[in-house]
Amino acid sequence: MTIIYGTIVHTPIKGQLEVLLNALLLPGDTKVHYLSDFQFIIPGLIDTHIHAPQYPFTGTCTDLPLTEWLNKYTFPCEGKFEDTEWAKTVYNALVRRLLRNGTTTAVYFASIHLEATQILADTTLALGQRSLVGLVSMDRNAPDKYVDTTETAIAKAEKFIQYCLQKQQPTRLIPVITPRFIPTCTIPLLEQLGGLAKKYNVPVQSHISESKDEVAFVHALHPDVESDTTLFDDCGLLTNRSIMAHGVHLSDKDVQTMAQRGSGVAVCPLSNAYFANGLFSATRFFQQHQLKMGLGTDVAGGYSPSMMNSMRQAVISSSFWQDPALQVDWKTALYMATLGGADMIGLGDVIGSFAESKQLDALMIDLRTPNSPIDLLWDESIELLVEKFINVGDDRCIIDVIVGGKFVTP
Amino acid sequence: MTIIYGTIVHTPIKGQLEVLLNALLLPGDTKVHYLSDFQFIIPGLIDTHIHAPQYPFTGTCTDLPLTEWLNKYTFPCEGKFEDTEWAKTVYNALVRRLLRNGTTTAVYFASIHLEATQILADTTLALGQRSLVGLVSMDRNAPDKYVDTTETAIAKAEKFIQYCLQKQQPTRLIPVITPRFIPTCTIPLLEQLGGLAKKYNVPVQSHISESKDEVAFVHALHPDVESDTTLFDDCGLLTNRSIMAHGVHLSDKDVQTMAQRGSGVAVCPLSNAYFANGLFSATRFFQQHQLKMGLGTDVAGGYSPSMMNSMRQAVISSSFWQDPALQVDWKTALYMATLGGADMIGLGDVIGSFAESKQLDALMIDLRTPNSPIDLLWDESIELLVEKFINVGDDRCIIDVIVGGKFVTP
Ligand SMILES: [Zn+2]
Ligand SMILES: [Zn+2]
Repeated sequence: MTIIYGTIVHTPIKGQLEVLLNALLLPGDTKVHYLSDFQFIIPGLIDTHIHAPQYPFTGTCTDLPLTEWLNKYTFPCEGKFEDTEWAKTVYNALVRRLLRNGTTTAVYFASIHLEATQILADTTLALGQRSLVGLVSMDRNAPDKYVDTTETAIAKAEKFIQYCLQKQQPTRLIPVITPRFIPTCTIPLLEQLGGLAKKYNVPVQSHISESKDEVAFVHALHPDVESDTTLFDDCGLLTNRSIMAHGVHLSDKDVQTMAQRGSGVAVCPLSNAYFANGLFSATRFFQQHQLKMGLGTDVAGGYSPSMMNSMRQAVISSSFWQDPALQVDWKTALYMATLGGADMIGLGDVIGSFAESKQLDALMIDLRTPNSPIDLLWDESIELLVEKFINVGDDRCIIDVIVGGKFVTP
Repeated sequence: MTIIYGTIVHTPIKGQLEVLLNALLLPGDTKVHYLSDFQFIIPGLIDTHIHAPQYPFTGTCTDLPLTEWLNKYTFPCEGKFEDTEWAKTVYNALVRRLLRNGTTTAVYFASIHLEATQILADTTLALGQRSLVGLVSMDRNAPDKYVDTTETAIAKAEKFIQYCLQKQQPTRLIPVITPRFIPTCTIPLLEQLGGLAKKYNVPVQSHISESKDEVAFVHALHPDVESDTTLFDDCGLLTNRSIMAHGVHLSDKDVQTMAQRGSGVAVCPLSNAYFANGLFSATRFFQQHQLKMGLGTDVAGGYSPSMMNSMRQAVISSSFWQDPALQVDWKTALYMATLGGADMIGLGDVIGSFAESKQLDALMIDLRTPNSPIDLLWDESIELLVEKFINVGDDRCIIDVIVGGKFVTP
């Protein structure tokens, strides 16, 4: 029996921080932890949108518009995951890196390869990260070497779902229906993926109204279709477990439709700055439509695998709205990176904040750890310590990572 | 005699990276360094705008508009530097932190206190950082406990200049005339500071056209004055060694005046996002007016003491211009953080890039250092390694810091 005793911070209500002093947590391991004055516990971070096979070129190659970027850098890099040894190397490095940065749950796009995607799922289980994993489906507008027929795409998607469900880890490894985005999928593929989502009752993820060139591409392919939203909806892909990345060019009508279906947006502020040609209206969509939202790193369109950067950039990007009422503060960013994301991915009852009924996914934060990037020069309130961690902290301050009550610090 | 042998990267021309393979550097210390394949040398980073006494609250308290932020957080914090022991503690921590993050030259705002500002100057000399240090001048619109009379302000400014000049380190410690910003300075103070700048031929720094509330404040105080630029110019404060922070609300006419005087802007993208209510037109002002520009962290208005963050945010913020022609790429950001800044602060012949005639201010970068935040999963060109360092690297990758040929790694 283990006890963690000290200061616990979470965001059970959007925009508000709850600080619990002298609190007890009971994970499954057998150590006793007394937190010092400069240590506190926050919920594990949830990355609701990340492309695992793009990890090798993270931090580089964000100099082109989205569709050119896909063809020049992304498809060739993802194509290499036919090689299962390469998949093991990259996915092991990535999952360890994410855990080290406090990402206790990640929602992954993998590649079109069944074996490599199974390796990603296995890696997350082996290293103790909670994951939602999607085998990418696409049957057109991609290189000959990195595309499936509709039949193959569907067969692989179904096989991968079955592979995950056989593990019987319903809150630890969840398969996700993953049409890459509308331009690389025929309507029959989208419709059959919608059918699989219904048949197996599993989440859906894709990209939605991401950038000007993506919107134009969809319009060229489907001149009679009103928007990505209407097409996804017609194909049965907007469910209460749909995780749609970006959404910068969603109309209010689109958002209303998504909110009615219970679908949410994985907001990726860092990659949006490079690719989206616009700002996401997080605050307005929260207020007017109660749209579900989480944050994502969008590696490698986003240059950082750390959700710390996603939180910071969510705040900074929102400042360009000028109207202070539309800005996102750091507490709301922390909410989106924890409970907001958990709600969107269908795990709001399991993780995202601390409650007796939930599993314990948590990060132990220490601002005075050796080699800390933070100088604490005077006494601060716990709230200011948390703000300092979110703005200036990094993985060095995350001294322990707990998933489901187990220490999984890599 | 020491030799550093390996890959050297700098930006002698804006927007271009020059990579020198198998290059030799000759600093003054007595070790021989052979760089490995994942190590390279870049010029030391130059922070052209940072408030040393604000360091204790870095990473917090950026939730208010500028003038409210000054009164609630900044003036009370700066006021504490009457205590010289406190100054020693904070300035020692700050200068070490900056060196660790690769800031080999910093342009500091200190406080209105003579002794504390002398301590800052001494600390930079003792720890081996190159610095431009300004004792802050203000004689109105500040708390009674943290303001001078015009006479006292001028007397202190002159004493501090003399203190620095007596050290006879003309490229290592340079005093800077430092009117905080127009709202806290009477016209006589500004005029007499202009006189001191001329008398001692020393640089000038201030804040210029920073935010909407600052511009409105100046207009309320001086309804007949056209802009900050014209007032500074009238007071003799726009010289070819003037470093003006922010400039987000400069008109084209203002920029033309500044460029004609040889003055430059310390661009602070991170704090601009929080306070400036607008975007700085870096690319346009480069192209149309050849305005001199460097980058600054603007601690604590900017939450990060690392110039890595300033470079990243310079790129990200510029993306909100939408027009790709107005965007700043990472090579230009590196230029602004090195040679661009050096040119602006009057040290373009001394530092900022590698040349036989210059002093050696350099950072030794290692992407595979233990505990590195970067996973290198495949071979990369040196250019992609540098891009990866700038986007995903941090102080852990800066394994040595060299100023004037001496290793000063803290
Ligand atoms: Zn994506
Ligand atoms: Zn400033």
